Amino acid sequence: MTFPVVGMVGGGQLARMTHEAGIPLGIRFKLLSDTPQDSAAQVVSDVVVGDYRDLDTLRDFARGCDVITFDHEHVPTEHLRALEADGIPVRPGPDALVHAQDKGVMRARLDAIGVPCPRHRIVSDPEDVAAFAGEGDGFPVVLKTVRGGYDGKGVWVVRSAAEAEDPFRAGVPVLAEEKVDFVRELAANVVRSPHGQAVAYPVVESRQVNGVCDTVIAPAPDLPAERALQAEQLALNIAKELDVIGHLAVELFETRDGRILVNELAMRPHNSGHWSQDGAITSQFANHVRAVLDLPLGDPRPRAKWTVMVNVLGGDYPDMYSAYLHCMARDPQLKIHMYGKDVKVGRKVGHVNTYGDDLADVLDRARHAAAYLRGTITE
Amino acid sequence: MTFPVVGMVGGGQLARMTHEAGIPLGIRFKLLSDTPQDSAAQVVSDVVVGDYRDLDTLRDFARGCDVITFDHEHVPTEHLRALEADGIPVRPGPDALVHAQDKGVMRARLDAIGVPCPRHRIVSDPEDVAAFAGEGDGFPVVLKTVRGGYDGKGVWVVRSAAEAEDPFRAGVPVLAEEKVDFVRELAANVVRSPHGQAVAYPVVESRQVNGVCDTVIAPAPDLPAERALQAEQLALNIAKELDVIGHLAVELFETRDGRILVNELAMRPHNSGHWSQDGAITSQFANHVRAVLDLPLGDPRPRAKWTVMVNVLGGDYPDMYSAYLHCMARDPQLKIHMYGKDVKVGRKVGHVNTYGDDLADVLDRARHAAAYLRGTITE
Repeated sequence: MTFPVVGMVGGGQLARMTHEAGIPLGIRFKLLSDTPQDSAAQVVSDVVVGDYRDLDTLRDFARGCDVITFDHEHVPTEHLRALEADGIPVRPGPDALVHAQDKGVMRARLDAIGVPCPRHRIVSDPEDVAAFAGEGDGFPVVLKTVRGGYDGKGVWVVRSAAEAEDPFRAGVPVLAEEKVDFVRELAANVVRSPHGQAVAYPVVESRQVNGVCDTVIAPAPDLPAERALQAEQLALNIAKELDVIGHLAVELFETRDGRILVNELAMRPHNSGHWSQDGAITSQFANHVRAVLDLPLGDPRPRAKWTVMVNVLGGDYPDMYSAYLHCMARDPQLKIHMYGKDVKVGRKVGHVNTYGDDLADVLDRARHAAAYLRGTITE
Repeated sequence: MTFPVVGMVGGGQLARMTHEAGIPLGIRFKLLSDTPQDSAAQVVSDVVVGDYRDLDTLRDFARGCDVITFDHEHVPTEHLRALEADGIPVRPGPDALVHAQDKGVMRARLDAIGVPCPRHRIVSDPEDVAAFAGEGDGFPVVLKTVRGGYDGKGVWVVRSAAEAEDPFRAGVPVLAEEKVDFVRELAANVVRSPHGQAVAYPVVESRQVNGVCDTVIAPAPDLPAERALQAEQLALNIAKELDVIGHLAVELFETRDGRILVNELAMRPHNSGHWSQDGAITSQFANHVRAVLDLPLGDPRPRAKWTVMVNVLGGDYPDMYSAYLHCMARDPQLKIHMYGKDVKVGRKVGHVNTYGDDLADVLDRARHAAAYLRGTITE
């Protein structure tokens, strides 16, 4: 059969789970991985070990791929343009992906298309940060390097100009943003294909701990229908305006005064969509594959009233196997997703999904399993 | 992390789908495949290409595996005993597996434990077949070679002694069985682990076309609760008595006079359990992995009122990709499972699952998709 080959750059858990979702689709999956031990490299047949920052490596990898897509946003934009010039479809393309790579470009573009964002501007030094604070409600101010940050890295909350030295040390432009008085964080996940079909997953609530995603509840509890629709349409609009192909996650703040502001964009399967593996008719991973191949998209609707995802972080115990056995025995309905990673304190090594009709029960089961796997509880 | 390595012998679609189910479990999967192009070899990282009939090959493969399990029943019993003598856990073990390898041994054992079977005995030649017919209701009689048959191969329905020559040509013992006057075929799927935990999937109806499984409906429509329970208990009892570890499929005849008779046994994930990938809380593949690793088993209960599986057989069109695209566009809820196999007429190259509340609709959607993929309908 002439089923296509999807090449994915990056060997992390997103590639691992994309491969898993691609197996029933019958597509061939090719991986460019930093090492043979990476999460995805452990489970994929066709692995090239190499450096995604090297254009020759990317070109060699792309040969024989029908499309190139990504586990992360770190491939240099000029390399993606070179691949496109070679005739390789790159999805999302460099003109879209730059908005997930550079927060300055992203903010400027969202402003231009009228998407509500926190107050922001590029700042040049600590004094300029103080000026930015003075233009609004004062400190605290959020500072972000425009490139290279994730999971809370590259982000500072500062209360004075004196605290604002660090972000400027890297020599990367720094974006200042108001510290939004939000009630909670939401995420709107959508998938868009080259022929313009798009689907929206239900808007979820995302809870962070120390800047890292901890819990996702699908759908977001007590979210008024019109606000959910507003968030979905906002994400669909961003996908269209930025010509995103594949999965787009739009991280949102829901403010105390009822507004929805865009926090971050990610153009790949996203932690806020992991619940869809067990909670939606079609998972974000399957739909990402379908989108980058320009196949018709699958139904994103939920299969359960409530689905909860809780991340499993590494704790003090390097061997999770006995905890994992305990969790399976305690809850035969629990869906565990392990990434094959060595345990390091605070590292995402897996997640659990639970679903059902009673949110309190579903939340409790997921939290218990994640805490038990991490080792923070022992019964 | 010290997660275990599951070694699977055989590179067919069952191994492919077992690997898929093992990815979220975080286990390592190692494959012994006949060729690098086999269905599972396309998607597994750690593949050994070799001949499972060769003991040295098996021994080399087993090194580094924590347990050995199977995609098929063709590994010689004496080789499995040799692996066990080397200290490798083989699950199911040779003493169990022989009942799925040899229909004569299976019938004798089921008789001994009181499991209802069609009338049967080993026959020596065509005259003996006529004698067997005369001992019961006469012809037709079903003849089966005791080893090597599957999907209707190695099975003959004969109407006279003169028609009974062929089965004896292979030099393999031949089992004669009454041709059961059945209303329909059912299958009872159960999974059992070394510490004796066992779970039963709902009993399904299985429809064959030309001796090949065509459609499975879960649960079996209009099956009285007490007969369903009887079938589940029969399968659980066989698993226990034969010390089966892993998945056991018991193919059953439901007779016109309301009895349940055992047709065949399979000790591996089975075509009659494919519906569980999208229709049960835990799939047969995930539970097979959990069982052979002696992990607690997952919940086998259905997630939908009705789930239907229809096999996709190869037709006249070697390239299914455009048909596959059409099916996705027509039914965004359709779950397609392709095996990565070249299309040959009549070959199982995939299956589709559908689920929902309305059986007629669920059946129609699955049948339409399978027929469209095969090319027997074009709209």
